[in-house]
Amino acid sequence: MAIEIERKFLVRDAGWREAVSRSTRMVQGYLVAEPGLTLRVRIAGERALLTLKGASRGIARAEYEYPVPLADAEAMLRDLACTALVEKVRHLVPVADRVWEVDEFAGANAGLVLAELELEDERAAFVRPDWLGEEVSDDPRYFNARLARHPYRDW
Amino acid sequence: MAIEIERKFLVRDAGWREAVSRSTRMVQGYLVAEPGLTLRVRIAGERALLTLKGASRGIARAEYEYPVPLADAEAMLRDLACTALVEKVRHLVPVADRVWEVDEFAGANAGLVLAELELEDERAAFVRPDWLGEEVSDDPRYFNARLARHPYRDW
Repeated sequence: MAIEIERKFLVRDAGWREAVSRSTRMVQGYLVAEPGLTLRVRIAGERALLTLKGASRGIARAEYEYPVPLADAEAMLRDLACTALVEKVRHLVPVADRVWEVDEFAGANAGLVLAELELEDERAAFVRPDWLGEEVSDDPRYFNARLARHPYRDW
Repeated sequence: MAIEIERKFLVRDAGWREAVSRSTRMVQGYLVAEPGLTLRVRIAGERALLTLKGASRGIARAEYEYPVPLADAEAMLRDLACTALVEKVRHLVPVADRVWEVDEFAGANAGLVLAELELEDERAAFVRPDWLGEEVSDDPRYFNARLARHPYRDW
């Protein structure tokens, strides 16, 4: 079990692209998408993960993540997902001593780009790159489970 | 992913005890307990498993099972379970060329004993031991997820 502490931002422009160190295509869906529990299946490249998250407490959240066989993940997304699938490319963008995850959404969420930073505690300091926009950590519209049900193109 | 095909019976008497080859104490709880999806955390001795099951189709059911760290399982049962915990001792009972699982429940389900047999297909033949009672495969009262919410002592 880990406690996930994550801050999430819009981007102001595409300046982040120059600094991308790696990009991975991801598709994910939710078997459970409740406020108190989400169960996510994610396929990232050739890897698959099953991730369980409890209720959010501020920007912190208990997270349990386990690798699963790719064929299991595909079958779960096909047979058990309770939401549409969310497609995105995750770009890793090093900035100073941290690595941002910039998610460029596709499919029903095309046009949306979110920059996320995992932090060791809620008050941890970090360098704000020029391309960083408004913080949306607390805005439930940007939760991935919400984007599966209410995609960006319908906003 | 596996397809679980299981037949479940009451026991007529305690004749099964003579043939027990191994007994393991188990405690399990459900993070999700819906007809179309159950998510179970089970601690069996020093091992822990996370098990996801889809909707039943007759006596067959898609099942995904992954080992998880014991500490994760304990935290999930403590923080995320949506039901009471189910306690039981699982006895393995070889009969002819098969091994029965005889679950002797404890706690709120004390007094209940169920004998289960996993089969390779729905019509597979098996030897019925003398101690075997009425079949309850299709009776939802005996589903473990149901026993977590409506324990035997309240029937």
